[in-house]
Amino acid sequence: MLNFRTAGESHGKALIALVEGVPAGLKLDVNQINTELNRRQKGYGRGGRMLIEKDRAEILSGLRRGVTLGSPITIIIPNKDERIDSAPEVLVPRPGHADLAGALKYGTRDARDILERASARETAARVAAGSVAKQILARFNVRVFGHVISIGQAFCDCRGLGSKDIAAICASDVSCPDKKAAIRMRAEIDSAAKKKDTVGGVFELIAENVPPGLGSHVQWDSKLDGKIARAILSIQAVKGVEFGAGFASALIPGSRLHDAIRRFGKKIVRGSNNAGGIEGGMSNGSDIIVRAAMKPIATLYSPLESFNLSTGKKAPASVERSDICAVPAACVVGEAALAFELARAMLEKTGGDSIREAERNMNSYLKQIESMIG
Amino acid sequence: MLNFRTAGESHGKALIALVEGVPAGLKLDVNQINTELNRRQKGYGRGGRMLIEKDRAEILSGLRRGVTLGSPITIIIPNKDERIDSAPEVLVPRPGHADLAGALKYGTRDARDILERASARETAARVAAGSVAKQILARFNVRVFGHVISIGQAFCDCRGLGSKDIAAICASDVSCPDKKAAIRMRAEIDSAAKKKDTVGGVFELIAENVPPGLGSHVQWDSKLDGKIARAILSIQAVKGVEFGAGFASALIPGSRLHDAIRRFGKKIVRGSNNAGGIEGGMSNGSDIIVRAAMKPIATLYSPLESFNLSTGKKAPASVERSDICAVPAACVVGEAALAFELARAMLEKTGGDSIREAERNMNSYLKQIESMIG
Amino acid sequence: MLNFRTAGESHGKALIALVEGVPAGLKLDVNQINTELNRRQKGYGRGGRMLIEKDRAEILSGLRRGVTLGSPITIIIPNKDERIDSAPEVLVPRPGHADLAGALKYGTRDARDILERASARETAARVAAGSVAKQILARFNVRVFGHVISIGQAFCDCRGLGSKDIAAICASDVSCPDKKAAIRMRAEIDSAAKKKDTVGGVFELIAENVPPGLGSHVQWDSKLDGKIARAILSIQAVKGVEFGAGFASALIPGSRLHDAIRRFGKKIVRGSNNAGGIEGGMSNGSDIIVRAAMKPIATLYSPLESFNLSTGKKAPASVERSDICAVPAACVVGEAALAFELARAMLEKTGGDSIREAERNMNSYLKQIESMIG
Amino acid sequence: MLNFRTAGESHGKALIALVEGVPAGLKLDVNQINTELNRRQKGYGRGGRMLIEKDRAEILSGLRRGVTLGSPITIIIPNKDERIDSAPEVLVPRPGHADLAGALKYGTRDARDILERASARETAARVAAGSVAKQILARFNVRVFGHVISIGQAFCDCRGLGSKDIAAICASDVSCPDKKAAIRMRAEIDSAAKKKDTVGGVFELIAENVPPGLGSHVQWDSKLDGKIARAILSIQAVKGVEFGAGFASALIPGSRLHDAIRRFGKKIVRGSNNAGGIEGGMSNGSDIIVRAAMKPIATLYSPLESFNLSTGKKAPASVERSDICAVPAACVVGEAALAFELARAMLEKTGGDSIREAERNMNSYLKQIESMIG
Repeated sequence: MLNFRTAGESHGKALIALVEGVPAGLKLDVNQINTELNRRQKGYGRGGRMLIEKDRAEILSGLRRGVTLGSPITIIIPNKDERIDSAPEVLVPRPGHADLAGALKYGTRDARDILERASARETAARVAAGSVAKQILARFNVRVFGHVISIGQAFCDCRGLGSKDIAAICASDVSCPDKKAAIRMRAEIDSAAKKKDTVGGVFELIAENVPPGLGSHVQWDSKLDGKIARAILSIQAVKGVEFGAGFASALIPGSRLHDAIRRFGKKIVRGSNNAGGIEGGMSNGSDIIVRAAMKPIATLYSPLESFNLSTGKKAPASVERSDICAVPAACVVGEAALAFELARAMLEKTGGDSIREAERNMNSYLKQIESMIG
Repeated sequence: MLNFRTAGESHGKALIALVEGVPAGLKLDVNQINTELNRRQKGYGRGGRMLIEKDRAEILSGLRRGVTLGSPITIIIPNKDERIDSAPEVLVPRPGHADLAGALKYGTRDARDILERASARETAARVAAGSVAKQILARFNVRVFGHVISIGQAFCDCRGLGSKDIAAICASDVSCPDKKAAIRMRAEIDSAAKKKDTVGGVFELIAENVPPGLGSHVQWDSKLDGKIARAILSIQAVKGVEFGAGFASALIPGSRLHDAIRRFGKKIVRGSNNAGGIEGGMSNGSDIIVRAAMKPIATLYSPLESFNLSTGKKAPASVERSDICAVPAACVVGEAALAFELARAMLEKTGGDSIREAERNMNSYLKQIESMIG
Repeated sequence: MLNFRTAGESHGKALIALVEGVPAGLKLDVNQINTELNRRQKGYGRGGRMLIEKDRAEILSGLRRGVTLGSPITIIIPNKDERIDSAPEVLVPRPGHADLAGALKYGTRDARDILERASARETAARVAAGSVAKQILARFNVRVFGHVISIGQAFCDCRGLGSKDIAAICASDVSCPDKKAAIRMRAEIDSAAKKKDTVGGVFELIAENVPPGLGSHVQWDSKLDGKIARAILSIQAVKGVEFGAGFASALIPGSRLHDAIRRFGKKIVRGSNNAGGIEGGMSNGSDIIVRAAMKPIATLYSPLESFNLSTGKKAPASVERSDICAVPAACVVGEAALAFELARAMLEKTGGDSIREAERNMNSYLKQIESMIG
Repeated sequence: MLNFRTAGESHGKALIALVEGVPAGLKLDVNQINTELNRRQKGYGRGGRMLIEKDRAEILSGLRRGVTLGSPITIIIPNKDERIDSAPEVLVPRPGHADLAGALKYGTRDARDILERASARETAARVAAGSVAKQILARFNVRVFGHVISIGQAFCDCRGLGSKDIAAICASDVSCPDKKAAIRMRAEIDSAAKKKDTVGGVFELIAENVPPGLGSHVQWDSKLDGKIARAILSIQAVKGVEFGAGFASALIPGSRLHDAIRRFGKKIVRGSNNAGGIEGGMSNGSDIIVRAAMKPIATLYSPLESFNLSTGKKAPASVERSDICAVPAACVVGEAALAFELARAMLEKTGGDSIREAERNMNSYLKQIESMIG
């Protein structure tokens, strides 16, 4: 089964992604991984570290002559800023971070023991794994992308974006193709920076050309939306996730919400996509649409109240180098998370040990569907 | 590890929950399971089936003289309305249901093959499993409850509810202690019923007295919020989930959002609980607060457009007996889902094979925390 | 993924098997399950309980009109001898059983809390699950069977048994088609019975027509032989497992042990099958051959020395109703265990959600192999 | 949960072990890992590669100042002989290896795509992971070691070895403290080498001071012996595994096989250890004793018959640089496999997130046991 683990600390030697279950015979392009890593590092509102280092992936295993072997793929992203052993103690836990809960759980007074792993730096490894997933999905013509919907109180007006808009999204330093909205978003970030404050936002992820029938209704933990939700909510600072009409579904009567089913020849077309492409825990053939809310960065240069775990005394929270806004970066991580879950569900559907076999099985499934509809 | 599987079809012989990893030595009260099952069946807006049958659990394994043995616990809930083999075909898939995606995936033209398992009737088994989890949590003084925040466009004004409000919540047929709001909620349901329409809503789940340090930041799939999100989103018709301030977090600057940390003697008190009790993927000692959006029931007595999978012709969607609104019931299922994830995380923290050993290990952990703070 | 859990105590209400991941569209024959259950209950050397009750399976979920739905299949086997709550305490742990280790682990002085679940009665549920697996394998023309090689010091001289011998094996009450050996085996059992002693033995399992490429070499826990070994060694009283030449492999030089590879047209034929059908953790197309050693039943009517967990005093071990020899029964359980692992590996290879899709994908894989060889 | 994955090809950049679930606060000694790696490389009968390179581990993640953080530990062992992209094709599959089954499964005619990962070189990563496990076990005073029982037809006469014999075992280049037997073993290897043949053997693993109650009888896949069997049988070339008296158990009547239970003060002493320390799938407090049979190395310098996957023509099997005998090395890998399973079972019993918490919980469990016995 396709799976991945990440390892590595923020100021350790490297971030690592170990990806298992990739079919054999896939030409894996490390440049695409690096492109994604660099997308994650950009975005208006990022702090100083992004200037220090440009992530580059190295593949240690699982390839021969650039082609996958079916064996585990190990990707490492060296940290140029390695100093975990010399970095200072963090004795005053920062509200909004893992610091306090982690210190109590693992029995340490020095929250650096926690934050080094809890840091969003870890998402570099997830992006690398997600790029492998995207390269699998590309073989099935599935495309995953994301864009920023809001930063702070600045919302865009984008509706119905598709892969045709990817260039415009990527051209924007807030990942928003609506240029007027992008100006307002940057203003939110500038304003927060001035106040030594931070700001969050909402991003949307879209997957196009997903075949129906990924995931399953048969068990609580086999549902595709549940799996995607876990993957997205496990991204640092994400506090909410919704599919299709999402929370708005609760406001709309059934007669106006549910997506009428229409057949056109050998194709099924839906009257709308309020379900966000998932019904009964399965992809339904429409685009998958997920939105996630990211809270503001928890490290504040004007720190909140806390206390010193060593002395027990009240103290302002520790300050680690950080960003003002990382919503565009989180959107890239979200793409990786969604892509990985879809690639896994795809390969569960197809079985097979080589990409050729997986494609063959998928094609024969798609023919089965056609024969049912036409 | 604590885990559960459910089985059973809507009109099959029974619903089944198989719960593994419950420590030995726990007195398990089947009446509490039945109480929860009955809570799930009630609520304003439920359809006819709830009148037909009153669920009662029978425990087939895992107990001796009412006490757990550490072995798997099998709970069955017989269906009084068993007729899966004689029930008619469902050839016109219903928008909003698993019908279409499932039929294509499993290669059947008769969506009854899908809907019998996809039906929310399955949640009876989850509620039974959740009641076992609640009985585990009770040994650690953790309490999980839920209430309805909105139905359609009718919102309550409840804030800061606690376990002291459980009686009032249970007394309400819309699970809302705000009596004025409850009137508006019932009006939404009545109005939908009159129009042969359906209506969704939002519910909130709260867990009190959760120790800090459940879940972990160390890996993407070990985060407590990710796990809870998966469990909640896997509930039929749920389309969104959020923690603490949730989507609103994206609107609020960091300086006002994050929850200040204060020490009072051997206790930590937070200035607010916008994090919803989870930071860095771990419980932080505050109440865990989760909200979920439920879409309107997808079966409409005035059915939407669809097509016949056998003839290929346009047809109104099939109609199965159904409810107008099931938000209060979904809230009970949500409690079960949250309780199960917390009980699992609790036992991962404590280890141990008997409830006595688990309690002993938890107490010694709590002492460790006290010694770190005081 | 195909998986199963069992539940139930020896004198509880029922044994339960919950089987997940069975493809939809498989006609499941409950009579075949019952036939297997009855085979497990027979065999020379079984004690009184087998006379009391004849196991009959009831399927509670996962079927509609006798055909699988893709949803979890729940099989229950009611215990006619239900008396777990009234059965007496077992305070003196029996050497060779789970009694002592279990009592210490779960913190009970009454080993009945342990033995009710540890009892080999549980294997009835495994046999039921195994029968489902066999019915899946039958769709791929894979056949699994077993026979007894030795009981105590009586060995058979069978070599190269095949499915053609199944009738003769089943006709033997010691599951041995070698009639002279069978007489010696029964004599071993009679002799043990006379001495109030017990006797073990060795059985062999064979799977015919297994396609190459099940399991994988890519990770330590993806190897087919490792998985089969776990499944077989988890059968009560099994103390050793070996594949092909097994322990004898250690005695034979490589030049005589390894199985030469020959191509005949579109087929590969091996010079021998000392590998037992598995190389590099994968099926290689030859028959899979596994042998397991079963220790004598641990309950002795002339009990061994032990001590009373309540008084701390020396005492002869408790005596529960038991068998003299259960090797033929264990062989049936072994078949179930092997069949289940093979069916799982088969479906991992094929993917697919309906049996038709799985068959189609397997056929296309077999064609791929042919094109590589021919 | 403690777990590990390995990655890396024989002539790729590195072998990698990713170990998850190690408690925080453990001082991890990389020298101990290197010592184990070097033990694996030694042994009479190894081929040329062992002279080329001396494995050295580098730890990329999971540590700060040499102490574990609770986060995943990544260990890499660089390959000095990296040449996977330039190494020649292997078109004639070698009997006894993964070559043929793997080529068919993954759809490649070049078995190098398979053997690079299937190679026993991978066990270096397992030994590294096992050394982490041994360092965890050391905190609980559990010691794991192994020795060689036979090579080819040369058997030792060792019985009842204990950790006191480790120095003598390590001093032997065939891991056998019986010096006369060691001479015969070396003679077997020399004789095989002269004939361009290979030779296998049997090794035994022992774990001392294992507390009772690791593993569990409650489910088929929770049994400790099943898990150990899987881990041992997944070692390249192992074809059989047995516990305690193992296959001999089948020959001995129950009255002489089972291990009498005696209480001495607060301790339990067994009359023998034919169970090999495991009853009912749980450790019983006696030493755990496992034996494994290793087949001869499958690469023969005087190759067996095979055929060319590209031309379809008969051909002698390919020859890759290889060893004559690797039983002493496999024994080191076996120690790692056993240690890992025991460390996992230990931490499942204790729970806890820091090694201090795990130790505290284990001590309180041991006190519980004492109070039950005394």
